[in-house]
Amino acid sequence: MPARVEGRVDDLLADMSLDEKLAQLVGVWLNVNRDEGVVAPLQDSMQGKDVEFEAFAGQGLGHITRHFGTRPVDPEWAGTVLAERQRWLRRNTRLGIPAIAHEECLTGLAAWRATTYPAPPAWGASFDPDLVAEMGRRIGAGMLALGVHQGLAPVLDVIRDQRWGRVEECVSEDPYEVATIGAAYVRGLQSTGAIATLKHFVGYSGSRAGRNLAPVHAGAREVADTLLFPFEVAVRDAKAGSVMNSYAEIDGVPIAADAHYLTRILRDEWGFEGTVVADYFAVAFLHTLHAVAADAEDAAVQALTAGIDIELPTGVAYLEPLKRAVSSGRIEEALVDRALRRVLLQKERLGLLDDDYEPVPPGPVDLDDPESRALARRLAEESVVLLVNDGVLPLGQAEGRRVAVLGPNADSVAALFGCYSFVQHVLPHFPEVEPGIAAPTLLDALREELPEAVIGVERGTGVDDGDRDGIAAAARLAAGSDVAILVLGDRSGLFGRGTSGEGCDVESLDLPGAQRELAEAVLATGTPTVAVLMTGRAYAVPSLIANAAAVVQAYFPGEEGAGAIARVLSGAVNPSGRLPMSMPRASGGQPYSYLHPKLGAAGSVSNIDPAPVLSFGHGLSYTDFAYAEVNVAERATTSGSIRCSAVVRNTGDRAGAEVVQVYLSDRLASVTRPLAQLAGYARVELAPGQSARVGFDVPVRLLAFTGRDGRRVVEPGAVGVSFRRSVADVVAEREVLLTGPVYEITGDERRLTTVSIDAHTMEPGA
Amino acid sequence: MPARVEGRVDDLLADMSLDEKLAQLVGVWLNVNRDEGVVAPLQDSMQGKDVEFEAFAGQGLGHITRHFGTRPVDPEWAGTVLAERQRWLRRNTRLGIPAIAHEECLTGLAAWRATTYPAPPAWGASFDPDLVAEMGRRIGAGMLALGVHQGLAPVLDVIRDQRWGRVEECVSEDPYEVATIGAAYVRGLQSTGAIATLKHFVGYSGSRAGRNLAPVHAGAREVADTLLFPFEVAVRDAKAGSVMNSYAEIDGVPIAADAHYLTRILRDEWGFEGTVVADYFAVAFLHTLHAVAADAEDAAVQALTAGIDIELPTGVAYLEPLKRAVSSGRIEEALVDRALRRVLLQKERLGLLDDDYEPVPPGPVDLDDPESRALARRLAEESVVLLVNDGVLPLGQAEGRRVAVLGPNADSVAALFGCYSFVQHVLPHFPEVEPGIAAPTLLDALREELPEAVIGVERGTGVDDGDRDGIAAAARLAAGSDVAILVLGDRSGLFGRGTSGEGCDVESLDLPGAQRELAEAVLATGTPTVAVLMTGRAYAVPSLIANAAAVVQAYFPGEEGAGAIARVLSGAVNPSGRLPMSMPRASGGQPYSYLHPKLGAAGSVSNIDPAPVLSFGHGLSYTDFAYAEVNVAERATTSGSIRCSAVVRNTGDRAGAEVVQVYLSDRLASVTRPLAQLAGYARVELAPGQSARVGFDVPVRLLAFTGRDGRRVVEPGAVGVSFRRSVADVVAEREVLLTGPVYEITGDERRLTTVSIDAHTMEPGA
Repeated sequence: MPARVEGRVDDLLADMSLDEKLAQLVGVWLNVNRDEGVVAPLQDSMQGKDVEFEAFAGQGLGHITRHFGTRPVDPEWAGTVLAERQRWLRRNTRLGIPAIAHEECLTGLAAWRATTYPAPPAWGASFDPDLVAEMGRRIGAGMLALGVHQGLAPVLDVIRDQRWGRVEECVSEDPYEVATIGAAYVRGLQSTGAIATLKHFVGYSGSRAGRNLAPVHAGAREVADTLLFPFEVAVRDAKAGSVMNSYAEIDGVPIAADAHYLTRILRDEWGFEGTVVADYFAVAFLHTLHAVAADAEDAAVQALTAGIDIELPTGVAYLEPLKRAVSSGRIEEALVDRALRRVLLQKERLGLLDDDYEPVPPGPVDLDDPESRALARRLAEESVVLLVNDGVLPLGQAEGRRVAVLGPNADSVAALFGCYSFVQHVLPHFPEVEPGIAAPTLLDALREELPEAVIGVERGTGVDDGDRDGIAAAARLAAGSDVAILVLGDRSGLFGRGTSGEGCDVESLDLPGAQRELAEAVLATGTPTVAVLMTGRAYAVPSLIANAAAVVQAYFPGEEGAGAIARVLSGAVNPSGRLPMSMPRASGGQPYSYLHPKLGAAGSVSNIDPAPVLSFGHGLSYTDFAYAEVNVAERATTSGSIRCSAVVRNTGDRAGAEVVQVYLSDRLASVTRPLAQLAGYARVELAPGQSARVGFDVPVRLLAFTGRDGRRVVEPGAVGVSFRRSVADVVAEREVLLTGPVYEITGDERRLTTVSIDAHTMEPGA
Repeated sequence: MPARVEGRVDDLLADMSLDEKLAQLVGVWLNVNRDEGVVAPLQDSMQGKDVEFEAFAGQGLGHITRHFGTRPVDPEWAGTVLAERQRWLRRNTRLGIPAIAHEECLTGLAAWRATTYPAPPAWGASFDPDLVAEMGRRIGAGMLALGVHQGLAPVLDVIRDQRWGRVEECVSEDPYEVATIGAAYVRGLQSTGAIATLKHFVGYSGSRAGRNLAPVHAGAREVADTLLFPFEVAVRDAKAGSVMNSYAEIDGVPIAADAHYLTRILRDEWGFEGTVVADYFAVAFLHTLHAVAADAEDAAVQALTAGIDIELPTGVAYLEPLKRAVSSGRIEEALVDRALRRVLLQKERLGLLDDDYEPVPPGPVDLDDPESRALARRLAEESVVLLVNDGVLPLGQAEGRRVAVLGPNADSVAALFGCYSFVQHVLPHFPEVEPGIAAPTLLDALREELPEAVIGVERGTGVDDGDRDGIAAAARLAAGSDVAILVLGDRSGLFGRGTSGEGCDVESLDLPGAQRELAEAVLATGTPTVAVLMTGRAYAVPSLIANAAAVVQAYFPGEEGAGAIARVLSGAVNPSGRLPMSMPRASGGQPYSYLHPKLGAAGSVSNIDPAPVLSFGHGLSYTDFAYAEVNVAERATTSGSIRCSAVVRNTGDRAGAEVVQVYLSDRLASVTRPLAQLAGYARVELAPGQSARVGFDVPVRLLAFTGRDGRRVVEPGAVGVSFRRSVADVVAEREVLLTGPVYEITGDERRLTTVSIDAHTMEPGA
């Protein structure tokens, strides 16, 4: 931190009244409505009161909340309004400090007409951090172009229970993958100068029975060793600028009131210097939902003390109630100053405190330019996972072939997008408004991709309406076709309005509505059927996997996703996605994670086999890959790293990409450890006949865990190092002896595996 | 502890070789087989090796394992064999110390021909600790008559997930009820001089997704505040003599290796002075299943150090491996002596070290005497829960009425018994052997109870065979009858051989097999249908509850249970059982407990409503009860107690019993607290028109929880005190103000509510 910056912030802080200080610790959420000709206060009962900007912001303002993401407004116009507000803050408040404008941006900036990328499970399926980083960079650039400084993404929750509706916002079941993909997003977004926000710190994904916000029954070790890791990487390696608290209570203590995580771990241990922002209403929830605070003042005191710097979306606890607490001496003003310094330092870094800062309206903007669309396409292509294939795929081109396109998601725009996309988050409230972006459905894309085919269409049933009336017609069409493409899955939405998404949880992992019956009817025709799953979670579809000619898992693939899927089906694109989450065998049996010790697997002590039908990391290609020349170091020290490599060869006749996966297995430890954990991966593009030596330098620190005495350690002993096609499909495994003393993790040791790809024979493909 | 005893044990200990010491820390499990004319070594691969008693026991012997409970042997003969062995130990070992003989005894002594009582959920449903204590006393007396000193019961695990097969071995979803019923069992059993064993200390019921032995993902606070409470009561209030470890690992640490629970909590905090015995094979499991021990020696060192005194069922780790560890100095012999002292003190108390101890064979024994059968009947009668009733019950007597008796459990002996009964635990391996006890089925009992009726019988389907062939015949019989009695549920068994029981877990809470289809077909006939559920867990049967004329939940009611149910149906007995566990609404959605904070209930943040269809504490009667004159103290101190009372009146025209339930609701606390928790109950028998004032003196200590700083405290503030018919049915609620400072629980405060029943008008019934 340059002394100049520190000094400047200190000077400013010393000059501020308590009201001015508190104003910097809150946001305001205003309605931005061009049609009404006004910038009207947002009607939202959760906000507690309606406000006028000028009245609210007279003492200054910390944040402007979702200026673009609340209604469908012309981005250029809204950018002009935003600049006007910043100018007002600059000129009409005593200190002239602009606000930080923040916006949702998980699958692209949540603004009308902005590119909508695939949802996070697709990022996980791509196993391609570089591409995710590029997506982050483009999202950040779009934000800054509009005057938005901070994006409320990525979500770094590790998937723990497929019943949870927000699985669709998560990258993976594996913390190492969440960490690497999530950190790439952060690096990309922040490379533009914008701020990323890590969500939801911590524990949210472990909610009881997968019900949103239900109490988390996790132990301290599980949190420390599994759930915190992605956040640590994103803070320490990717230098994320902001962290959002989790709504969760873990073992009885709400995170929003827990200094252990918000301060001791995040700041004291990891050295985080950015801001901690409250998830919307989370400060008030300490009173209203958790019942650990007597009122808003108590909630404010607890949250600020624990380490929440900024109350969002607006100030119901951090203004008057917190002022009372400071004035009465219940809480020290130094804690206000602690948060305030963090906010001001962030504004300083953003240039908002510069003497010559002048908010400028955006020029004409194209938030969905061809380069962004091309990136959305490429990421979608890399994320399609081919689960099974009896040879029906690729379809290729065949003149006159009768193709039945069936299922509720075949001709659905909604099926492309997750619940934090603008289309699904905001537009359902404005049914008269067009999506604002081109979003061809899979049916559209198939018509374009298979011009020689005779395409027939039957929806069969809705996503969740349970309507069986159309099933017979769909089956008839399938029976009269050469191939059926059955497009099933979710419709994302919020709070019960979807089958996936925030507040759209499930108790069973059967496909929603009558989709299972539709699938059974279509499969019963005997027509070769390609099932395409456009879902927010992993459903239990064992019979589909067993009986369909091919199954493709696509998650929510974004605005260019339909074309990506169509090109995988035709064969124009060779599928290369790998499962970022297990495909469960049973509709019950959750929670489940592949990261279980021996007793989490099938055994003689229970009749239940929890093994998934297809495992984490699984995915097929139209070509084949062979492994050879596996080298693994025989020894490493507990503080060192393990070198290993293998030669991977494309033995088929077309180009493709293999995701080389390295797993570690701690054979014996003082606490129980997973049978295998992902410790490195590399996406390797190989031409036919081409091979490459793929090398990994795996920090042994990845094996660290919280021992019985609470210290994080690496213990010496035998470790299995394996190359696997999925966690259940071992290509080669070697034993490595870790030598040296028990090594305690106390500092900032390297925690990510480095990868080298040394291509042989010929250059790898793009 | 009298000085004489201490001194005697110390003298003995000082005289023992290491081999003699270790021999006292293990058991031996031998086959007792009269038919083969020998007492042969048990063939059991888990045991690791076959042994001859004389060879094994030459240095002495700590325990004799399941002498009566392994095969169907004549108890009198086996008792004679046991006495011979004890005499051999007395005369042929250098120190002449007899063994402790232990046996399973959860639902009665697990010996052939012994009374088999209802399973623990029925004890919970009875809400009658006195009757459970009497059962314990009779079980203990039977044990001692045969020479068995220690019984491996009760199970004090708090039900957390209905998918777990061992729910049928647990008393209740509520820790206060588990504590009071469990302590009653212990007091009764130990009043005879026998030793009870608390199972499974601790956490077993929280296994992941309800899979037996799967890792427990619980936080330390949940364990401390919910799961430990029944054990604390059974140790401190009921002075239980022995504790068995849980197989579970909690948050990565197996209990068998965890000194925190086995020593710091159990002994240092609670003052436990008895023995900790290993659950069978649990010491070896540290190596073979948990992978936290390198080998048997390491496992022995960890278990002994943590506080497991005795390895059961036999010594695979505590003999040669532990000897090596002691000899090499890896572990101090003082830890062997620590365990040994506990064993010897227990033997001393049992009289086994008396100079004049002489093992005597039992005389002629009747393990199933009429008094025991009458008690089994009474407990079963009190445990039948009438869930819904449109007036079809009681059936009464009606000459010529056509009664269809349907369903897989109508004529099933197995349906009476849980998996730790001798009939279900042992006899399935000996299909040619008779149960050894009279065990009429519900069909038998209905024929006796309804002599005027014309009874027709159709099984419809098996418990879990999925056979639908008989459903039509069952529906036809129902259609041609005046009333249908549809008897559904489980068949208990072990390790996949049942639908409930140890190692018989489920992923869905739908009734097993085709029973749901059978129920739908019978209900569709329109004939008034009484559904009887004989189950080991609470199934999700919302449509049955909505559509049947009446539903009766009976659990496994024991050898006299069929008569009890039949008499409830006829009306000879007025039902008085109350649900000891929630009846779930959905086949998914587990885990669930009514003890959840606000965010565990339905709310706007998730579309899922986890509320059960019928709640903990619910149960109907053939009469009605009214509450009046509710008095609740307005204030209490944080270290004091809350007095409350209500007048309960039988307003109907027949005698019946109400279970008066008092709940506490901590409105605001520094950690999240359940919306309501049971804090007292009283079973009150009232004649028609009779009333009684039922008073409770509730120790405020029941509100104690582990605060954010780890201290167990009671905080001042507002508390709701309510009388409820079930947790969801509030009769009256009052606010009580807790005054005084935060009170830290450090000692042996009173922790159980005292009850007074002051009958008015006339004396209460028996």
